[in-house]
Amino acid sequence: MLEKRTKVNGDSKKNKASKTKKDTHIEEIAVKRGFFYPAAEIYGGESGFYFYGSIGKLIKRRFENLWRDFFLSYNNFHEIEGTSILPEKVFQASGHLKHFNDILTECQNCHSRYRADQLIEEQLHKQVNNTDDINEIIEQKKLKCPKCGSNKFGKAIMFNMMFDVNIGSVKSDKGYLIPETAQLAYLAFKREFEINRKKLPLGLVVIEKVFRNEISPRQLFFRLREFTQAELQVFFDPDSIDDCSQFEEWGTIKKKGIKVLLTGNKKEQVLTLEQLNKKSIPKLYLFFMLKMQEFYLNVIKLPKEKIRFRQLSGDEKAFYNKIHFDVEAEIDSLGGFKEIAGLHYRTNYDLNNHQQASKQNLEVFFNNKTFLPHVIELSFGVDRNIYTLFDIFLKQEKVNNEKRILLALPPLLTPYDAAIFPLVNKEGMPEIAHNIFKELNKNFKCFYDASGSIGRRYRRQDEIGTPYCLTIDGQTLKDRTVTVRDRDSMKQQRVAINELVGYIKKKSS
Amino acid sequence: MLEKRTKVNGDSKKNKASKTKKDTHIEEIAVKRGFFYPAAEIYGGESGFYFYGSIGKLIKRRFENLWRDFFLSYNNFHEIEGTSILPEKVFQASGHLKHFNDILTECQNCHSRYRADQLIEEQLHKQVNNTDDINEIIEQKKLKCPKCGSNKFGKAIMFNMMFDVNIGSVKSDKGYLIPETAQLAYLAFKREFEINRKKLPLGLVVIEKVFRNEISPRQLFFRLREFTQAELQVFFDPDSIDDCSQFEEWGTIKKKGIKVLLTGNKKEQVLTLEQLNKKSIPKLYLFFMLKMQEFYLNVIKLPKEKIRFRQLSGDEKAFYNKIHFDVEAEIDSLGGFKEIAGLHYRTNYDLNNHQQASKQNLEVFFNNKTFLPHVIELSFGVDRNIYTLFDIFLKQEKVNNEKRILLALPPLLTPYDAAIFPLVNKEGMPEIAHNIFKELNKNFKCFYDASGSIGRRYRRQDEIGTPYCLTIDGQTLKDRTVTVRDRDSMKQQRVAINELVGYIKKKSS
Repeated sequence: MLEKRTKVNGDSKKNKASKTKKDTHIEEIAVKRGFFYPAAEIYGGESGFYFYGSIGKLIKRRFENLWRDFFLSYNNFHEIEGTSILPEKVFQASGHLKHFNDILTECQNCHSRYRADQLIEEQLHKQVNNTDDINEIIEQKKLKCPKCGSNKFGKAIMFNMMFDVNIGSVKSDKGYLIPETAQLAYLAFKREFEINRKKLPLGLVVIEKVFRNEISPRQLFFRLREFTQAELQVFFDPDSIDDCSQFEEWGTIKKKGIKVLLTGNKKEQVLTLEQLNKKSIPKLYLFFMLKMQEFYLNVIKLPKEKIRFRQLSGDEKAFYNKIHFDVEAEIDSLGGFKEIAGLHYRTNYDLNNHQQASKQNLEVFFNNKTFLPHVIELSFGVDRNIYTLFDIFLKQEKVNNEKRILLALPPLLTPYDAAIFPLVNKEGMPEIAHNIFKELNKNFKCFYDASGSIGRRYRRQDEIGTPYCLTIDGQTLKDRTVTVRDRDSMKQQRVAINELVGYIKKKSS
Repeated sequence: MLEKRTKVNGDSKKNKASKTKKDTHIEEIAVKRGFFYPAAEIYGGESGFYFYGSIGKLIKRRFENLWRDFFLSYNNFHEIEGTSILPEKVFQASGHLKHFNDILTECQNCHSRYRADQLIEEQLHKQVNNTDDINEIIEQKKLKCPKCGSNKFGKAIMFNMMFDVNIGSVKSDKGYLIPETAQLAYLAFKREFEINRKKLPLGLVVIEKVFRNEISPRQLFFRLREFTQAELQVFFDPDSIDDCSQFEEWGTIKKKGIKVLLTGNKKEQVLTLEQLNKKSIPKLYLFFMLKMQEFYLNVIKLPKEKIRFRQLSGDEKAFYNKIHFDVEAEIDSLGGFKEIAGLHYRTNYDLNNHQQASKQNLEVFFNNKTFLPHVIELSFGVDRNIYTLFDIFLKQEKVNNEKRILLALPPLLTPYDAAIFPLVNKEGMPEIAHNIFKELNKNFKCFYDASGSIGRRYRRQDEIGTPYCLTIDGQTLKDRTVTVRDRDSMKQQRVAINELVGYIKKKSS
């Protein structure tokens, strides 16, 4: 995705750029419990860069694997891995060198630098995207520097958001860190078409880090300078764009509903694929729209009121995207609906650019004709999706007048499947606990904790979402059962050690 | 690992820097079959950068997951994820800004740039590592430019191998792409210690891309400017370095043998852990040495004559490494034993550096005392390991006077578990084949191929290592069986469709 700005939302008044209370709350628990924390934290961090802690990394891996299982399940869909550094020529061809800019202005007094459009949105509540309009506002001295209060700003200029590097010891060999994974798939397309038996549709998946040199990243973990994208590029014959039968029969899916917010509308509505097809959205595009919705509702299990597809208007979408919907999730801590994924019909824009610049023939022979395939792109911001999980599933409740913090993740996404506690560190309990840990770890991911009161150990596991806590206690020594405590109901029951695997498997499914 | 040079091998005469015939052969099949190919290939590639194709990526993912399962199986061992970009301060503290250099010289005639030590090794068969000695050789005009033949070279200078980037719009905020994953774990250590119940040993794993701006990368896929490391940093109490009982009883492992090439020796020998312990190598270090050997022999299933542990001498190892063994694999296409992993006792060198530079207290309270933990590092070059697999398992044989190319990977590492072929695209065969594909894909990773003769389809699968090819033919329509053809024996047998899952599971285990 070339798009890089915070999208204008249907209900934009709800948006707040500053930290809300819940935002701070997520950040606080995230750092304390190891979901994520600032990069190089001991050196004070670096704006726009975060590490995943040991707990967050487990959630991220599970998310990515669920994503792979779902979107790579089709015949002729494959994952590839590209490099983070690509030579300059690639970005001359892709348009990033020319177009991937932010509008920068500098306070003439304290020399702080800002994204001019962001300052205007925050201070004047206006959406302005072109430099002329921005410079008019700057000349009229309508903007105040958030740092020093001065109203003297320098002329707005275009600032390219790619990080550049010199390759080798010669300065002239310039490269850039990739700002999106999509280009990797376009560069590899022809080779992969040949490797994979010259068939269309061909799906190429890349899950990798990308890099965008934001002028002043805000929204903490949600807008990063280095983040992970999971993208699927589907290459197909444009003559069959209104046909999804390679994947699923239109008759069996056409009555399924999608929650959409169409351009010009103020309210969301549920429309069937058939109704959307009548509004000139082709069947192949709609098939992937349905799959994205199914991924969020059936795999990730977001509550259905929390997500929607928002159609972008001509102004908002990149000019080469013929159709563009964002998937938006309602994120309370960020004040409303925010983009977490997108579905883009990019036509043959990218392959055409690379064909011209590289002078390589990227056309294929298929369906008895020679042509440049078209592309539908499914693009997911992995970290934004992870943040959405924290926003939606991290809950506070009162239990017996005490605050309980609970990460109520669906079982497939929890960092651990179970925690194992010896009640005390004596009387053979640690030995039994270690054996259970070793045994269960063959089937599940388990956490071992031997210190502190059982109540505090429960609370720690609640905060990282562990569904089951197993305590080895006095009774275990007598009857080979353990106490299993359920995260959500907080109810406890005795289960025989040799039935634990079956018990957790049954409960989790 | 700070080490960056090709290691001096015990049998260095065997080494050849140039491409051998087998090297070219691997590269050729790799590109044709989608193991790996040059980055941005349509633009002519960029030296030192490769993409993983759809087949290579499957092998890489399987390797990484086997690695994770093996090295993360211990209590209190966790994976974290850091950023590729870190601020300058980190590398001032780590020593990389000062020490992570190559020695560069430039031909005064054609201005080609070279690693001076490499030129000397290639042309004079000498190992020289310091600039004074190198400049003496340059002054004596003993070197010839491989490109233009001139013997006039400029004075050798130190060239830092890190890629630098500017963060944000202000030039002064400098960062670097990480040249090793280790620093990520050191930066996160104190936070992770607190998150994970303040216990030692604590293991932190990072599997990520790292970046080294080699002056002139050779050896194609084996020496890259961007590559993946899998590293495990084990933080422990230095007082218990001669005790591995937290992991395994010394008594049960001390008689196990390790193939080592000790400094000063010309020949490898198998010594038991007990014998090595008597040579002042501590038990904790030996425990991880054994685990690394087990990983290669039992999980990856390298033939045991192909790997060894080579001890580095004082000159070769980084000064802060108290003990340093490389794992070397014998790689025919590169002319001998090459480093593919390493085991380093780094003491508290890194934590101490970061503690001083960040002014944060990184000491822990554990075992009733306050101290800075020591570190044993297990470091694996993932891409070098993958290349080793190709070198060892890619075979050519004659079958009925025809050449057969076979990637004889162990079943856990093959990209696909099975391939599914309808004999012809009619008579209901494709429908049955698709159903089998869909069903088997729930348990395995399968490839579907419907075009070309069965013989050619077999050959394609042989080259990517698929253990079983399933053909749906005329008899299938009658008795619901398919032909299963075994990769290694090339024997065929009929198996009932509903017994396929069990058949493949049994054969693969």
